[in-house]
Amino acid sequence: MKIDILTLFPEMFAPLKTSIIGRAVESRKLEINVVDIRDYTLDKHRKCDDTPFGGGAGMVMMPQPIASAIEAVDPEHNAKRIYLSPKGRVFNQKVVLEYSKCEHILLLCGHYEGVDQRVIDLFIDEELSIGDFVLTGGEIPAMAVVDAVARYVDGVINQESLAQESFSNGTLEYPHYTRPQEFMGLKVPEVLTSGNHAKIDEWREKMSREITLKNRPDLVEKE
Amino acid sequence: MKIDILTLFPEMFAPLKTSIIGRAVESRKLEINVVDIRDYTLDKHRKCDDTPFGGGAGMVMMPQPIASAIEAVDPEHNAKRIYLSPKGRVFNQKVVLEYSKCEHILLLCGHYEGVDQRVIDLFIDEELSIGDFVLTGGEIPAMAVVDAVARYVDGVINQESLAQESFSNGTLEYPHYTRPQEFMGLKVPEVLTSGNHAKIDEWREKMSREITLKNRPDLVEKE
Repeated sequence: MKIDILTLFPEMFAPLKTSIIGRAVESRKLEINVVDIRDYTLDKHRKCDDTPFGGGAGMVMMPQPIASAIEAVDPEHNAKRIYLSPKGRVFNQKVVLEYSKCEHILLLCGHYEGVDQRVIDLFIDEELSIGDFVLTGGEIPAMAVVDAVARYVDGVINQESLAQESFSNGTLEYPHYTRPQEFMGLKVPEVLTSGNHAKIDEWREKMSREITLKNRPDLVEKE
Repeated sequence: MKIDILTLFPEMFAPLKTSIIGRAVESRKLEINVVDIRDYTLDKHRKCDDTPFGGGAGMVMMPQPIASAIEAVDPEHNAKRIYLSPKGRVFNQKVVLEYSKCEHILLLCGHYEGVDQRVIDLFIDEELSIGDFVLTGGEIPAMAVVDAVARYVDGVINQESLAQESFSNGTLEYPHYTRPQEFMGLKVPEVLTSGNHAKIDEWREKMSREITLKNRPDLVEKE
């Protein structure tokens, strides 16, 4: 899978070089191409934002540098082009699975008040929101999308982990315990050290259901 | 406001040094303290994770290094202690406002399968989820929380921007336009260049309502 990320802050994507995603890139299971939108401005001062028509606070990202950057990295529109925006479709594990089937994804990060609407109208396939909160830019949401989607690229993580995790079957994951068996007076639940795998599975399913009902009854209602 | 971030991957937090959040830290409006959990392990090989009791895929973060790190940075439990987890309360703009009133926040980032449940039981005030999707760790969600909350720290961004943005009044934000007036055949909506501020406000409110009804009817139903 190839992912292009268009941003005014390319240095923000350092986190994608670490841990599991970093290893996926090193082993060429995943190609991540961070593109500095500023490299495509035709303005002699490399200006990429301007005040909004109609007045109001903040700056809006100008259409020309973004349009030129998109046309440079995806000239034939083979990529699924996504703009990270609080106005978009809500990102969830279903969207992750859908995107994980794409060969080429382009993520456009707005900053400040966002991008000129004409960029969205002319170039973007989907606006995507990672949640009902506002951030200073689309860079952190883009990292969340890359991280969530990359986990489904073949060979990036253990397939058993994918099957057991939260949202994979409509419930939240059961609690985890590791050594030591007793920590600050609290013991690991006895069943987990019993060696009885049927009982362990039963306990974990019961805990998943209870946690989901307690923390997220809305997920159960959706079923 | 002071924010402690406890993680096995401190190098992932480079993005908080850039743009608006970076300037807030430089001007001391915000103090961000990234703590490497591995510095607190008592294991001679600096091991911080182990296999789960009861079997299953992946590794679980051991309780001792995390407990020692929390006790070192927040010995009197003055901080609001938050664990980033898909099992948690759903993060949204209401939670942002609530957290923005805290003087001290501690964000614990799990990685791999997450942390030993006893750490949550003994040390954590609230589990928080940024959305219904699974990531390789809590580091990207922690950055989202810092970014969203920091915007509400006095003097970090323009107060007018906060008032007009998505979710601030239950609707999504109107579209933005900047120069040039015509781009690839598309003109800026005429009202925005009319100079009539009452009409501009009216158009923006109408657009906000229409976009919310089209993209997120659930936000309107919640009202």
